[in-house]
Amino acid sequence: MEAARCTQTSAGPPPDEPTRRGAIPLTEDVRAYIERHRGEFVAGLKEWLAVPSISADPARADDVRRSAEWLAAHLTATGFPTVEIWPTGGASPGAQASGAPAVFAEWPAADPDAPTVLVYGHHDVQPVDPVELWDGDPFTPVERDGRIRARGASDDKGQVLFHTLGLRANLAASGAAAPPVTLRLLVEGEEESGSPNFGALLRTHRDRLACDVVVISDTTMWSADTPSMCVGMRGLTDCQIDVHGPEADLHSGSFGGAVPNPAHALAALLAGLHDSDGRVAVPGFYDDVVEVSSAERALIAKLPFDEAAWLRTAGSTAAAGEAGYSTLERVWVRPTAEVNGMWSGHTGAGPKTIVPRSAHAKVSFRLVPDQEPARVQALVREYVAGALPPGLRATVTFAGPGVRPCASDIGSAAVRAARDAMRRAFGTEVLFTREGGSGPEAEIADVLGAPLVFLAVGLDEDRIHAPNESVDVALLLKGAESAAHLWNELAAVLRPGGAAGSP
Amino acid sequence: MEAARCTQTSAGPPPDEPTRRGAIPLTEDVRAYIERHRGEFVAGLKEWLAVPSISADPARADDVRRSAEWLAAHLTATGFPTVEIWPTGGASPGAQASGAPAVFAEWPAADPDAPTVLVYGHHDVQPVDPVELWDGDPFTPVERDGRIRARGASDDKGQVLFHTLGLRANLAASGAAAPPVTLRLLVEGEEESGSPNFGALLRTHRDRLACDVVVISDTTMWSADTPSMCVGMRGLTDCQIDVHGPEADLHSGSFGGAVPNPAHALAALLAGLHDSDGRVAVPGFYDDVVEVSSAERALIAKLPFDEAAWLRTAGSTAAAGEAGYSTLERVWVRPTAEVNGMWSGHTGAGPKTIVPRSAHAKVSFRLVPDQEPARVQALVREYVAGALPPGLRATVTFAGPGVRPCASDIGSAAVRAARDAMRRAFGTEVLFTREGGSGPEAEIADVLGAPLVFLAVGLDEDRIHAPNESVDVALLLKGAESAAHLWNELAAVLRPGGAAGSP
Repeated sequence: MEAARCTQTSAGPPPDEPTRRGAIPLTEDVRAYIERHRGEFVAGLKEWLAVPSISADPARADDVRRSAEWLAAHLTATGFPTVEIWPTGGASPGAQASGAPAVFAEWPAADPDAPTVLVYGHHDVQPVDPVELWDGDPFTPVERDGRIRARGASDDKGQVLFHTLGLRANLAASGAAAPPVTLRLLVEGEEESGSPNFGALLRTHRDRLACDVVVISDTTMWSADTPSMCVGMRGLTDCQIDVHGPEADLHSGSFGGAVPNPAHALAALLAGLHDSDGRVAVPGFYDDVVEVSSAERALIAKLPFDEAAWLRTAGSTAAAGEAGYSTLERVWVRPTAEVNGMWSGHTGAGPKTIVPRSAHAKVSFRLVPDQEPARVQALVREYVAGALPPGLRATVTFAGPGVRPCASDIGSAAVRAARDAMRRAFGTEVLFTREGGSGPEAEIADVLGAPLVFLAVGLDEDRIHAPNESVDVALLLKGAESAAHLWNELAAVLRPGGAAGSP
Repeated sequence: MEAARCTQTSAGPPPDEPTRRGAIPLTEDVRAYIERHRGEFVAGLKEWLAVPSISADPARADDVRRSAEWLAAHLTATGFPTVEIWPTGGASPGAQASGAPAVFAEWPAADPDAPTVLVYGHHDVQPVDPVELWDGDPFTPVERDGRIRARGASDDKGQVLFHTLGLRANLAASGAAAPPVTLRLLVEGEEESGSPNFGALLRTHRDRLACDVVVISDTTMWSADTPSMCVGMRGLTDCQIDVHGPEADLHSGSFGGAVPNPAHALAALLAGLHDSDGRVAVPGFYDDVVEVSSAERALIAKLPFDEAAWLRTAGSTAAAGEAGYSTLERVWVRPTAEVNGMWSGHTGAGPKTIVPRSAHAKVSFRLVPDQEPARVQALVREYVAGALPPGLRATVTFAGPGVRPCASDIGSAAVRAARDAMRRAFGTEVLFTREGGSGPEAEIADVLGAPLVFLAVGLDEDRIHAPNESVDVALLLKGAESAAHLWNELAAVLRPGGAAGSP
């Protein structure tokens, strides 16, 4: 903990003078507790992993419900005084007919002025196909060489469960009867199905979910040797562009070269999405982009990134992208325009000499703070309208409102507190990463008006979403250790009402 | 006939001093003969049209053979001393297993020094689907309002058959026992199936098909009011371009913006096929293009072209193409690059945020004299190779050797002779057109080393290849009249051994 910012709250004792009851937990006490309870933790996790809570499979709806019930019982056993299973869908405005249940729990701090923290995770899991590529049944968890293999072991049951172990360790080490912050948990059951009811759920329960900071435990670290914190996720908006020309396909002998060809116009329009420096050339696209700080760039550069290995993973023989940025920066902190698909005219075998009547593309844009999906959508529409020659018309259809980007200020008190908590657990410097992808996390921040902090110990090698998903038990225990320290770290720096976002 | 270029041949009498035997036929004699034999001509044509010689339908192979036999019998009855049915495929080198038969006939001129003319047409017809859109059975010919409706009435049985009527009229009007040129006919049976065995047939019988000029009767005129001659057809070569990137589709959140996207590269490559003036931007593409003469451009400009009507036919709201050329010039005398189709990545419903592993396009090039398909193919390969960024690779696969463009010199003796023959029949100025499409005709010129002259009276309104194909009988009779005059016109200007191509 850095003394300069460890402002004392009224609730806790001074950090350097622990008392038996309510003391700041000592690193060694936390670690000893967690190691003592390893077997119990693994047994519980295996029990939960045996419940095939595949939210995308309607036939598994009962299992998803059982999964929620298992977690609710476990949270009650952990000591949470309030544990509820929240149905989704149906009654919620804008929701789908019948969603999968979420689990909510709350454990108030003893001090009524203590800050409130919301932990987010999910208890549903990905489908298991192709099941024949698994080394065993995905829902019969097996521990071998320190790893548990089962669907959901890393994503996200293992990472949800380390919080209860961490909280028990915190209470045991401090001797307190309640956590140093008011702790709320929201564990959704539809994350792997695109969280169709999550926004409505957040809005319905906005008051009970109110918090000063959100802790997300559903991401990855750089590697087991290089602990890291995610501090941002890119946003996303995607559209289909349809360019229409002649009423029907035309014979290219009779008409070719004399009427506008929609495929030519679409190709030009797509080619024009980027300039020769690899920058997105849609006018105004970068207007709201906040340039990433030199401090964060320097920390990104400290990551032991092996570009050759990354390219092997990508199956690509070259890196390419926006000039002036490294590969990690291109994926994490820079916005993109990406053609995801396109089609026009004849796509079967052999030649067919036509001027096609129409041409189509799917294009997605990854966004970074402070780009707003709605503004980017407007810019894309303007770009397409301006790029069309006479005789063609185009429509641009966005798949939805899009996902906002999110990023935590690496200088903020909350991020520094979480980083310190992880450093205590891992005993080494904690670096920063971002996620190039997009998730429901930004919506939590939007709806609840609270900053996000990512605390997670997943690894790329956990093979989430793939056959033989597994998790390193030692890392889950480090996650529990980090969580055990996090509440006091946050209590020390958070002012109720939301100063967490400022340094 | 223009006196300045009517060089007398040794065979015929002087044009201004007709004799009873071998005289230049008088316009009124020819017309009278043809009008007297209208009924007989129509009856014969209807008989032939009743034979459903659809070459693309294997179940109609016997009908295609019956069609050849009908024509052979008719040519024998016309007086051709040599009539043969030529099988195709099988024995011919490079041919398909079993082709449809062609009909060959020969009628030598009395004068052994007279030039030789080969007439080309075809006796097979297009399929008739959708047959429910016909006003009656496609193979039960009906004459109504001066038009015969039946599949093949215009394309190409009607246009083949006017030659026998024209030849009878020529002989009757001149009193000669043999035509003023050695007349050869080659009527193929696979034109509507892409002439798969035609090249082999030409090469096998090259000696017996040797000629000084080839007369093609398988095209259209501008309109019934504006008789015209086709003087060129564009060539064609088409390819598939495949751009390959990462080994598999990649998640655009994890990799987007940092690896080369094959769809972006293909879009840029396709967009780069044209410059801002609508010219094809493949380096070297225009090197061998012979600029069309100002004389021909002036004649094209005389055609009563209604661009608004043409655009309605095209179903396009604007014309577009190479700067500096009219719509007709763009379609007839200028080469093109046309994207016929393209596809990449996700083309189904909804979004899918991937970097696609590959991207593909079908591109065809219409060619004009003296572009060689093989050279254009090499230029396109170079262009594609040079347009690819690192990390991507591309293959370019051409569908075959391509089709050469062909054009008749409008100042050549053969073209002027044919134009004069048509002018005598129609009694008005004959203009020039071209075909934007491509056909087997160029191969005839290539293999036989003889120039092409197009004599045909089809119209766009004949609806060839469509339901309710029909033909204007009066125009077929004008075709017969033109053919009746053509042999003397050609005999007057052709030197055996091939001076027909020069003015």
